[in-house]
Amino acid sequence: MSGFVTFVSGGPGDPELLTLKAASRLRAADVVLYDDLASGAILDLARKGATLVSVGKRAGRPSARQEHVNRLLVEYAATGAAVVRLKSGDAGVFGRLEEEIETLRAAGIGYEIVPGVTAASAAAAISGIPLTRRHTARRVQFITGADVNGELPADLNWSALADPHAVTVVYMGKRTFPELAARLIAVGMPADTPALLAESVGHADQRLLRTTIGRLGEQLAHESVTATAVILFGALVSRF
Amino acid sequence: MSGFVTFVSGGPGDPELLTLKAASRLRAADVVLYDDLASGAILDLARKGATLVSVGKRAGRPSARQEHVNRLLVEYAATGAAVVRLKSGDAGVFGRLEEEIETLRAAGIGYEIVPGVTAASAAAAISGIPLTRRHTARRVQFITGADVNGELPADLNWSALADPHAVTVVYMGKRTFPELAARLIAVGMPADTPALLAESVGHADQRLLRTTIGRLGEQLAHESVTATAVILFGALVSRF
Repeated sequence: MSGFVTFVSGGPGDPELLTLKAASRLRAADVVLYDDLASGAILDLARKGATLVSVGKRAGRPSARQEHVNRLLVEYAATGAAVVRLKSGDAGVFGRLEEEIETLRAAGIGYEIVPGVTAASAAAAISGIPLTRRHTARRVQFITGADVNGELPADLNWSALADPHAVTVVYMGKRTFPELAARLIAVGMPADTPALLAESVGHADQRLLRTTIGRLGEQLAHESVTATAVILFGALVSRF
Repeated sequence: MSGFVTFVSGGPGDPELLTLKAASRLRAADVVLYDDLASGAILDLARKGATLVSVGKRAGRPSARQEHVNRLLVEYAATGAAVVRLKSGDAGVFGRLEEEIETLRAAGIGYEIVPGVTAASAAAAISGIPLTRRHTARRVQFITGADVNGELPADLNWSALADPHAVTVVYMGKRTFPELAARLIAVGMPADTPALLAESVGHADQRLLRTTIGRLGEQLAHESVTATAVILFGALVSRF
């Protein structure tokens, strides 16, 4: 079978943070399959007449069945169309790329991945802080706060997460952060470890909140999850 | 003091992987201070007549004194020029941003950070693999293989690094990888853990080598370090 799919990283949402290559692939696309998270202004780059297909994943809502997305990818690619699969952030970071790639490989359809700006980089940049720091923060790690069922993953590495010399960025982790913070504190991480909540980065309703893991855990226990957010914590977050 | 500095993330080297915002800031710059790593085709975006200043950092070579870079930033910004400080990859990831930011803050000079595509994302994308995978690779971490003296950092978290459910990306780590691999194996990580060496991603001399941590450690013990590279290791690297 012929056909070709380009996985395009849409970045954090601001169209200016697309790469030149991502913008060019979007302009050339015949078909764009997009998650709701990556929609909005970025889709305006697609040419008039391109087929835009929402496959409906959303923070805090049930996902469209992955098999449905897989089938659409194969069917559109089989027509010979230039297919773009648009993902938010960097497609390789919590983008569930693997299932779609395996489907394409099984169907003999070629693909490429256009990397992009992940939410951690965007949140740190807009807050004016680096993600690493010589001497004090030599390791940066990204985790997801939500497993397949939306719960805090069961197999977290507490030694890695409570490490005072690391910076951690939690994706999709607002709802489970009260539990994560309580467990970090229980294994010995100071409750006053600096934390940063970065919500809707680059959008009109952007919110940046500098706080601590203890206070943020308490606050989010009483807040409903609407906007997408990342949470950064670690020693360097307070320095800038 | 007035003046303004834009830290621009240059991405992995391919000008197509610059963000639209980075390209626009480069085009508008009066002065561009760049490391050798971020030079080449990206600098062609600067307008004719812009002042381009190499500040001479290079993999495996002594860095220009940081104080010299700091002084240049302040002096150029003080003239009212639009100053771009170009960094390779994402400026926030092992970009030594903190010292330059602190200098600007002390001098009362404003700054912004334009995030970009970090080397880990670019290396994974060109290799056709994601950095995370549901169930099996829920944590991705970036470390540097070189401390201020070019040696393997002394305070590595072995529990975090040898975790079979994490993917690790080592920046600036080719020279010290033989030692890193030996120590990972000593703490119980299987020598046949998949590894990927991604060298000069997006350049004419790009090299992608799929191997294991054991074999790569042996091989790099006998190889001189010339090109810039990242090394990925972890369970998912072999899957694609």
